Amino acid sequence: MPQPDHVTALAPADEATLPDELVPYFQKCRDKLGFVPNVLQAWLLRPEKLRNFVRLYDELMLGPSGLSKLEREMIAVVVSSWNRCYYCLVAHGAAVRRLSDDAQLGEMLAFNHRVADLAPRQRAMLEFAWKLTATPHEIGQPDRDALGQQEWTDADIFDIAEVTGFFNYTNRVAHAVDMMPNAEYHGIVR
Amino acid sequence: MPQPDHVTALAPADEATLPDELVPYFQKCRDKLGFVPNVLQAWLLRPEKLRNFVRLYDELMLGPSGLSKLEREMIAVVVSSWNRCYYCLVAHGAAVRRLSDDAQLGEMLAFNHRVADLAPRQRAMLEFAWKLTATPHEIGQPDRDALGQQEWTDADIFDIAEVTGFFNYTNRVAHAVDMMPNAEYHGIVR
Amino acid sequence: MPQPDHVTALAPADEATLPDELVPYFQKCRDKLGFVPNVLQAWLLRPEKLRNFVRLYDELMLGPSGLSKLEREMIAVVVSSWNRCYYCLVAHGAAVRRLSDDAQLGEMLAFNHRVADLAPRQRAMLEFAWKLTATPHEIGQPDRDALGQQEWTDADIFDIAEVTGFFNYTNRVAHAVDMMPNAEYHGIVR
Amino acid sequence: MPQPDHVTALAPADEATLPDELVPYFQKCRDKLGFVPNVLQAWLLRPEKLRNFVRLYDELMLGPSGLSKLEREMIAVVVSSWNRCYYCLVAHGAAVRRLSDDAQLGEMLAFNHRVADLAPRQRAMLEFAWKLTATPHEIGQPDRDALGQQEWTDADIFDIAEVTGFFNYTNRVAHAVDMMPNAEYHGIVR
Amino acid sequence: MPQPDHVTALAPADEATLPDELVPYFQKCRDKLGFVPNVLQAWLLRPEKLRNFVRLYDELMLGPSGLSKLEREMIAVVVSSWNRCYYCLVAHGAAVRRLSDDAQLGEMLAFNHRVADLAPRQRAMLEFAWKLTATPHEIGQPDRDALGQQEWTDADIFDIAEVTGFFNYTNRVAHAVDMMPNAEYHGIVR
Amino acid sequence: MPQPDHVTALAPADEATLPDELVPYFQKCRDKLGFVPNVLQAWLLRPEKLRNFVRLYDELMLGPSGLSKLEREMIAVVVSSWNRCYYCLVAHGAAVRRLSDDAQLGEMLAFNHRVADLAPRQRAMLEFAWKLTATPHEIGQPDRDALGQQEWTDADIFDIAEVTGFFNYTNRVAHAVDMMPNAEYHGIVR
Repeated sequence: MPQPDHVTALAPADEATLPDELVPYFQKCRDKLGFVPNVLQAWLLRPEKLRNFVRLYDELMLGPSGLSKLEREMIAVVVSSWNRCYYCLVAHGAAVRRLSDDAQLGEMLAFNHRVADLAPRQRAMLEFAWKLTATPHEIGQPDRDALGQQEWTDADIFDIAEVTGFFNYTNRVAHAVDMMPNAEYHGIVR
Repeated sequence: MPQPDHVTALAPADEATLPDELVPYFQKCRDKLGFVPNVLQAWLLRPEKLRNFVRLYDELMLGPSGLSKLEREMIAVVVSSWNRCYYCLVAHGAAVRRLSDDAQLGEMLAFNHRVADLAPRQRAMLEFAWKLTATPHEIGQPDRDALGQQEWTDADIFDIAEVTGFFNYTNRVAHAVDMMPNAEYHGIVR
Repeated sequence: MPQPDHVTALAPADEATLPDELVPYFQKCRDKLGFVPNVLQAWLLRPEKLRNFVRLYDELMLGPSGLSKLEREMIAVVVSSWNRCYYCLVAHGAAVRRLSDDAQLGEMLAFNHRVADLAPRQRAMLEFAWKLTATPHEIGQPDRDALGQQEWTDADIFDIAEVTGFFNYTNRVAHAVDMMPNAEYHGIVR
Repeated sequence: MPQPDHVTALAPADEATLPDELVPYFQKCRDKLGFVPNVLQAWLLRPEKLRNFVRLYDELMLGPSGLSKLEREMIAVVVSSWNRCYYCLVAHGAAVRRLSDDAQLGEMLAFNHRVADLAPRQRAMLEFAWKLTATPHEIGQPDRDALGQQEWTDADIFDIAEVTGFFNYTNRVAHAVDMMPNAEYHGIVR
Repeated sequence: MPQPDHVTALAPADEATLPDELVPYFQKCRDKLGFVPNVLQAWLLRPEKLRNFVRLYDELMLGPSGLSKLEREMIAVVVSSWNRCYYCLVAHGAAVRRLSDDAQLGEMLAFNHRVADLAPRQRAMLEFAWKLTATPHEIGQPDRDALGQQEWTDADIFDIAEVTGFFNYTNRVAHAVDMMPNAEYHGIVR
Repeated sequence: MPQPDHVTALAPADEATLPDELVPYFQKCRDKLGFVPNVLQAWLLRPEKLRNFVRLYDELMLGPSGLSKLEREMIAVVVSSWNRCYYCLVAHGAAVRRLSDDAQLGEMLAFNHRVADLAPRQRAMLEFAWKLTATPHEIGQPDRDALGQQEWTDADIFDIAEVTGFFNYTNRVAHAVDMMPNAEYHGIVR
């Protein structure tokens, strides 16, 4: 499958500017995934920011949390669905398919998460993420209570909020610079 | 002026969990501002995340950029205006007033940025931030071109996009946990 | 603090056209407030309409009602928040601060009224005003019942509706002519 | 045609409370129209407010202006169309049909004003009213300029803004109290 | 009453292209209604499609169903009200007036269906049609259950959905080609 | 890949009720596709309607037109993207992939059609379909002119409008009955 003809609409970054400490990180991407995700190439335009982005991202999506890695990716896809972010729907849709080994689940979350037959606990999590994305000023105590009733702790609520917030951030950067995903994502777990 | 009766609606964090490396940071806040911003108290619920948040924030808002610190705060307020985020409007509205020494400018950006009599270059920056916040999937090449015509470079466009994205993230966390700003902000540059 | 460089974007009115009967009214403004509110200067473009406007306004906001003057100003600010009307947020935000002697309350109502810790009766009043402003055709009997359950009488409901309606009127005139508030409002009760 | 079974959802007003000075006004309605418009019956719940309402209304809709009476009624219908206000669409739709002697014009303005084959000057007036109703905070200098290019003066722009604002007020009161129009309107100029 | 000056904004169709099998159909329209509805003249631009359209329409609106013909026309008007479709509001508003012999009912459904004093079963039907038109992706099991509770069967729910869907189709074709209704509709049952 | 556990949320239809004339049609589906699309199973609840649906659909999507079959499927996907219709995004996304032999094109149109690198003529077609879906009452002569400038004829404009309208119909029926797509679609041209 052909790669997209651009990573972003901005001037491409030069990998020679990659901070030394991130060289092993890029290498690990190439070893494990076979490619460096274009989001990193995009952020490399501002190398000093790339470092902070990687740290925040890895803790948020891979660090210890009451949310499983799959649940965090599910939020990523649902937020990106509201925002219609092509990059994130492709990259994190692939992550959902890979982590769940369920080729349809990624499609459902990307197209309309309400058709998915989820556990009530996960459904509550996604409804919170959806509403917080679409109409953040309408979130209130009843919404937090709905999470509490599904046994999400206060620390979990913080994590749900932060993952939701984070993809509202990256979705906007991706839209703003016309970021295109690596072609490899399309073939994962079909 | 009385402090709000809660920092967030979640269980309060215990400052004893503050990572050692951040102790001087909190102390610097107390020395310089007279208080630790509640956003840090809120993030302390997840101490390992607080560290990443502080690093990203300081680089984004205070590090080298083609945008002045005031311009970055202006974006913060305009994004928070769309999202109707009380915490960020209070805290970053105060920052705009302090950095500009203009008591009305913060009000204008918070209530309706279009009434402010800004240079065309700043107006273009804020229109981009507003549209990227409100309808991210409608941003396109004409919007990037409008920034370029005002002599914003590609690196600047990245920074405008990232600051805009970032406050769409923190606004949502603030709404999600009902974060309340320190009372001290209200009195700054009135 | 400097005055704005224009009262409206239209040709300025000449105070010589002020109807005789309103001369004492303008004088009273100067005596009590120290200035004539710009909304009156704006309406003076059509002097015969200014008279009716003043009468309606004074009865609506200062006349006998089941709503306190502060409550009427609270509605004014919440309606203006939805409509993002700079003039009315500044002028009536100041009125809320003055009547409540609470510097934060005006900010809360202007930025996001849901963060304010209000009595349920006032909260119901503001939720009605917000919905009637945002989606008037969705108001129905359940919304009126919610007011009745908070001991608002039918005459009170009429007054809540009328104050809400009235600021949807003046907000639109202010937007349409780019009306700017007097600088003095900014300093009141900070 | 049967009258509606209620004037409003609130307690009905008693005509005995009609202020003396308005007795001839109600009589004139009965003589000229054959009935007292229900909006007046509704406002009679607050008799002291009815007087101000009548004065403002008569000056606004019938007094001297650069807008013809028909043009003011056209704005009334277009604003009420956006707000989906049954009372005002029926009453002012009838007024448009009567003043224009054009049975289709009222329908067009009520259902979708863009299908009407209007002069560019009137079309500009209605587009301004529509936008000012729907998204007031997006009105700006280009919108005022578009009116000026159609030879609307500054005083006319004020009147267009005020009529537009006024029906955003009465539409909301009508929705809030479930006001029903007199049956007689339906039969006018069909 | 004058006919509109165009049927659509596209090149007019030539009735000579009418498929033979539809000649009696057009004749029946002229005999029964006194005219051929302009929607058929519009579709005649693509004669082979006209045939399918007529068949689908006649079964949908006139064939056997748990919904009365009036109920199907009520849905047509409510859908067209959301979509602000002039053609369908005029043509199907007339049908509601004719089938119900109630001159006000058509106005109510066209302007704001919630003011009509309907049986709960019909109200549930129209609320479903309204929501399915406005925000189709928010329809869920609770909405279907609300219909079931009003004794609508599964086949009825299918028919409600199909009539709602169908007018979302024809409304869009009418808007897309600027279709104008025959003048005769305006005079029916006033 | 497992089949979904339901075709719709309504009582399942019995294939014994299939009209005789459609038996070969279902057989042809099984021969060519390997399955009967669930949309046909859903419509079988009302067998007499299924016949009309099939005729209309086949003419619309497969009959002679100035739009290629792929172009019609592209519209189907873009309309379904706005409406977030899972069934149609899966089924017609697969059709776009199959007809274009481009695994990414279907994803682009489903997630955010503006990222696709299309010919201006097709882009104009999709922008028209998108706007006609989202805000039908805002379509006007400039939108039709934009199609004409890309050499779409009046008959083509009719077909673009009709395909757009049609998927606004079927999307709503699919949402209303919770229609689930056959699992086979997911594997096509990945």
